[in-house]
Amino acid sequence: MAAGTAATAAIPTLPAIQLGNKYPVVHHVFFWMKNPGSKADRDQLVAGVKTLKKIETIKALHVGVVADTEKRDVVDHSWGVSELLFFDNLEGQAAYQTHPIHLEFIKNCSHLWDKVIVYDIAEA
Amino acid sequence: MAAGTAATAAIPTLPAIQLGNKYPVVHHVFFWMKNPGSKADRDQLVAGVKTLKKIETIKALHVGVVADTEKRDVVDHSWGVSELLFFDNLEGQAAYQTHPIHLEFIKNCSHLWDKVIVYDIAEA
Repeated sequence: MAAGTAATAAIPTLPAIQLGNKYPVVHHVFFWMKNPGSKADRDQLVAGVKTLKKIETIKALHVGVVADTEKRDVVDHSWGVSELLFFDNLEGQAAYQTHPIHLEFIKNCSHLWDKVIVYDIAEA
Repeated sequence: MAAGTAATAAIPTLPAIQLGNKYPVVHHVFFWMKNPGSKADRDQLVAGVKTLKKIETIKALHVGVVADTEKRDVVDHSWGVSELLFFDNLEGQAAYQTHPIHLEFIKNCSHLWDKVIVYDIAEA
């Protein structure tokens, strides 16, 4: 772009936050419900996932349900609850796996889900 | 717990940040590579995903690859690149879909992937 066009260029906006700088390791779990039509079951699982935030090595979390976005072939709307956790490192994720609060969550809530898929992600 | 036991209780730790308070809508895309063994292809796709951070409605992003976590049946290690985006609302996600930078990314990088799965998540 020529220097003379700068005055008419769009006003620059702040870039998005690169979460990987703060939270390099992501652990994303999707739960498919045993009773997909039960709001009570879904609420119980959401509440269960929220208990995990007391685990020291979890630095940030997002607990969610299916968003009302466009229906496209590539978008999977079939799951029930999303558990998105951020850690400082792989050791933090490993510590979470065997943490008593996590084991208690599994004991209390595993009857609610039918299938689980986990994605473990490292900052690129 | 009786008041007298407080002195021997474990030191409380800070709770994890609830990202949903800041970023209610999550858009998580997993790419399976056409050439899973090509580091060059993976690097090109990672670089492509990072161009998305200039899109105004993306508030935060995490770009990643498969983490070296334990091999368990529920953990999917078969994908190549993860694109994790956060938005203020559904409108922000819709605006991203048709944004010129996103369309340019698809034009430049779609030959690199074989399959895509998208999860759209709303804060619970």
